[in-house]
Amino acid sequence: MPDKVNLAEKFALFTEQWSHRLVGRINDMDVKLVKIEGEFIWHSHETEDEMFFVTRGRLTMHFRDKDVVVEPGEFIIIPHGVEHKPSCGEETHIMLVEPATTVNTGAEESDFTHTPEAL
Amino acid sequence: MPDKVNLAEKFALFTEQWSHRLVGRINDMDVKLVKIEGEFIWHSHETEDEMFFVTRGRLTMHFRDKDVVVEPGEFIIIPHGVEHKPSCGEETHIMLVEPATTVNTGAEESDFTHTPEAL
Repeated sequence: MPDKVNLAEKFALFTEQWSHRLVGRINDMDVKLVKIEGEFIWHSHETEDEMFFVTRGRLTMHFRDKDVVVEPGEFIIIPHGVEHKPSCGEETHIMLVEPATTVNTGAEESDFTHTPEAL
Repeated sequence: MPDKVNLAEKFALFTEQWSHRLVGRINDMDVKLVKIEGEFIWHSHETEDEMFFVTRGRLTMHFRDKDVVVEPGEFIIIPHGVEHKPSCGEETHIMLVEPATTVNTGAEESDFTHTPEAL
């Protein structure tokens, strides 16, 4: 039977940054938590849209033509095919909702490339 | 180009209860906001899982064998096929993530049956 997930409690269970933790599944979509700080790499996803929901900190999502600042209680959805680069000046906590097939760095092989772990 | 969505700002745009408002799309999933108060009907969804993320108030999700109370900063995912009935003693604000094919009352025709509107 389903149980609830408390985001703050789950975020307290890990400290590693840029490391996705699985906390739920909605049909073919994963729900993942990630703590990020600093700058990621430019990338895009060929077929997967990605939702970034911020619960703490401040996320700047860079696009080729603009930046969008996303704060707690806000989300942004990156459509597939759109190049983007997340960055944060402070540690920022994010709930991601995206197809389970999504690779965090898209087509770019990088030290950031990471397979999510169950939390 | 993608823009962000501020949940509190979007919730301020409507007052109607049990009326879903579309605020985003992640591939084949809708992101919807809904304000609920009182008791819904027992129902299930044949193929669609549903995520209820609470931003305000207090949601009680009834299952045939238990109740789960979901508070702000928490979510619950209802797997397809599982009977459930949401209820709230006070107005509660929820972000839903579920396949775009989801009918809010599942297979049950009801006065609650509702097609989401874009916000």
